[in-house]
Amino acid sequence: MTMADFDLTQLPTRSPADCHKEATVRQTKKIRQELIELQDRLYAENRRSVLIILQGMDASGKDGLIRRVFSGINPQGVRVHSFKEPTEGELAHDFLWRIHQQTPARGMIQVFNRSQYEDVLITRVEHLIDDAEAQRRFEAINNFEQLLQEAGTTVLKFYLHVSEKEQRERLEERVTDPAKQWKYEAGDERKANQWPAYRDVYEDVFRHCSPESCPWHIVPADQNWYKAHVVAKTLRDALVAMDLQYPASKVKRWEDR
Amino acid sequence: MTMADFDLTQLPTRSPADCHKEATVRQTKKIRQELIELQDRLYAENRRSVLIILQGMDASGKDGLIRRVFSGINPQGVRVHSFKEPTEGELAHDFLWRIHQQTPARGMIQVFNRSQYEDVLITRVEHLIDDAEAQRRFEAINNFEQLLQEAGTTVLKFYLHVSEKEQRERLEERVTDPAKQWKYEAGDERKANQWPAYRDVYEDVFRHCSPESCPWHIVPADQNWYKAHVVAKTLRDALVAMDLQYPASKVKRWEDR
Repeated sequence: MTMADFDLTQLPTRSPADCHKEATVRQTKKIRQELIELQDRLYAENRRSVLIILQGMDASGKDGLIRRVFSGINPQGVRVHSFKEPTEGELAHDFLWRIHQQTPARGMIQVFNRSQYEDVLITRVEHLIDDAEAQRRFEAINNFEQLLQEAGTTVLKFYLHVSEKEQRERLEERVTDPAKQWKYEAGDERKANQWPAYRDVYEDVFRHCSPESCPWHIVPADQNWYKAHVVAKTLRDALVAMDLQYPASKVKRWEDR
Repeated sequence: MTMADFDLTQLPTRSPADCHKEATVRQTKKIRQELIELQDRLYAENRRSVLIILQGMDASGKDGLIRRVFSGINPQGVRVHSFKEPTEGELAHDFLWRIHQQTPARGMIQVFNRSQYEDVLITRVEHLIDDAEAQRRFEAINNFEQLLQEAGTTVLKFYLHVSEKEQRERLEERVTDPAKQWKYEAGDERKANQWPAYRDVYEDVFRHCSPESCPWHIVPADQNWYKAHVVAKTLRDALVAMDLQYPASKVKRWEDR
């Protein structure tokens, strides 16, 4: 499937049939152990960084995913930033101004819970920007991610792909499940009817902002255990590919004196 | 002269022969009065902003220029930021990270005393980056300035063009003139011999980062009064072209009730 005829409804929202839950969960646990060591190397090396961008429709499980994947990792080397509705001060600048401030320093893993992509998603669904402005922003986002990559940041972009049916059920649970009622927000019913509108604007993002050098990963997200597995594995593979090395000791060994 | 065969030594460092100092200084004073009103409109409108980038070799008179042009203007609407050698924390990010944080909010005039261009100037003279990295940075800078312009920021870039002879004399004054000795820094003698090296890298900047939409203004800078005149006039013309309007009152008039 090329990006031009990109169709989100053709992509799975659930694990492949031959994927067994228990074995996969065990594997994810093993991967998390690897992540702990890889993050330690990244931090020690202090030369490069990782930016993880998490996007997904409401109730696609971004918060749960962050907990599942990153809980075991040294919090000194991982920072999570959740982008909310922009403040008045943030709106007084270009849309990447507040984003740029949160990019990772060398040695760090930064997680964006929502990101610059909201500025070409909700803004389009709510008709706050027109198509021409969206095109300008796509280009600006591509340039911005290229800048980060050139400065040594590995950028990993994940779309948590939840089905319309699963989203509707999860939004309903926020009304009926006492443990989830705190998540309920006015407008959740409306959101449940916006799946097709968000599908359209997400597809446009994948068409324009998924260059080979910085592709989107579309993650089947109806099952929490599978989603966590895919993200953890993708992150592990990216860190392994970086060939992270502990730097040489600054302390001279006895025999070197 | 096209940008490809750009030659800084062919451009004047002094005022044209028919330009009279006294008349010009009077005119500059008048322009400054206009700037006061134009800035007030920009601030009131609160929709667009202006970024003034000042570059020039050492002793080209950037600080004096800022004083001469902006002294009369409401300081609430003008901010000056001097970029020094990057800190360790700033160096842990891409080179535009610290720059982006200082871009003007809507309604504001921001002056950069030195700027992102230092990252393709001193870094090249000191051989901290190679030509390929300089090319990548030129492109990143052009993209960055385009982002700002798309967000409603007028970007004005001034190179204060001082002759090799004038620069040498000014650097020597820092040793002999008691009122200027505080400006003297170790290495000033060395800087005086770097004029040709800086000429080369500045010319490369003008070749690569002067698109029609965001050109460099090369300002003859051997005479302080003329330099201030050119910058003030260019800024005034840019503000006039923005067609700034006071927004409608939020208070209803009596007869409108």
